[in-house]
Amino acid sequence: MRRKEFAMTEEENMKELETFLNEMSFGFLGTVGADGKPSVTPLNYVYHHGSIYFHGSRIGEKMNNLSANEEVTFAIAKEYAIIPSYFEDPLLACPATAYYKSVRIDGRAVVVSDLREKADALEAFMRKLQPEGGYKTIDADDPDYIPRLKGVGLVRIDADHTSGKFKFGQNLKEPVRNGIIEGLSERGLPQDAETIELMRRYCPHAHTD
Amino acid sequence: MRRKEFAMTEEENMKELETFLNEMSFGFLGTVGADGKPSVTPLNYVYHHGSIYFHGSRIGEKMNNLSANEEVTFAIAKEYAIIPSYFEDPLLACPATAYYKSVRIDGRAVVVSDLREKADALEAFMRKLQPEGGYKTIDADDPDYIPRLKGVGLVRIDADHTSGKFKFGQNLKEPVRNGIIEGLSERGLPQDAETIELMRRYCPHAHTD
Repeated sequence: MRRKEFAMTEEENMKELETFLNEMSFGFLGTVGADGKPSVTPLNYVYHHGSIYFHGSRIGEKMNNLSANEEVTFAIAKEYAIIPSYFEDPLLACPATAYYKSVRIDGRAVVVSDLREKADALEAFMRKLQPEGGYKTIDADDPDYIPRLKGVGLVRIDADHTSGKFKFGQNLKEPVRNGIIEGLSERGLPQDAETIELMRRYCPHAHTD
Repeated sequence: MRRKEFAMTEEENMKELETFLNEMSFGFLGTVGADGKPSVTPLNYVYHHGSIYFHGSRIGEKMNNLSANEEVTFAIAKEYAIIPSYFEDPLLACPATAYYKSVRIDGRAVVVSDLREKADALEAFMRKLQPEGGYKTIDADDPDYIPRLKGVGLVRIDADHTSGKFKFGQNLKEPVRNGIIEGLSERGLPQDAETIELMRRYCPHAHTD
């Protein structure tokens, strides 16, 4: 069950989700094997023209699972802060939690064989993960790349549903949220300042503060 | 297909995998829904007495999926370095890759109802994620905790198979590996020195160097 105050729907916040998809370098692909068992594989990806693309060997468990069942899910998550219980309660462990961003895309996996789409997606992949350049542009007409493009397995996920959960204490009452902000501010771990900023940005009352 | 030089089996390297499981704070649970579709959920966990434990609401998609199908998989991964293509090839993009550690546990999810096991696992969870303390020890006999222990959903994954993939260029020929080590050393991103150390540690020829 996703509490309403945490959930971000495609319509409301697609831009935020896309920014996060472009920021992260890898995610987790969930598939179901022919035996009905789940499989989860971490992999680098690019979010390009509204789809997730990833590449890999044309043979192996991942591709076998995709052939058996095209229904896939893809999840990315970044943890910003572990929130210790004592930021809220001096006694009990229960309020301990973590603040994070996550995005989940449910859809269908399509194995791409068109060389132009392969070149285009792999070039986008390189621009994302190697933005400093230092390689010849991937081009479907380049004889150096043609055999390599033919040899690589490329998969596109056509999304049916995209959703996100950005958890930054949105459901907290004002005094508790302030206590956590104060705790983070005193603790000062590398991501704590950014976490405070995100708590303020996603606070449901942010516009009235 | 996992290339032999990357794969780590339970028998060979369980200690390395366990160290990594204890280091990471969250992983991705893969389940299959009653509709046969995969689901992937990021969650904090503790690796305790040889099992993964996680907690959550007793109702919701995650618990529904576990009721429909106890077969689960749990994956954690940490990316150490994006390796640009030009560390190996001045021209083509193809050698671009990433070095990472990942662990995957396939098993069966068991919903825990015994209060002592719940208290024990949640206390281990707290010791992992809040090692500095600042809370009353979770105890199944403590009246403050009893209703809370009853209210929380706790799941244990009984592992059938555990495997890891630590990818640090183990399959590279010496001159290429040396070129990558040199490139990382010059680049000097925060994790690059550790990546070099891991490349050396996991190099299949390490003992002859």
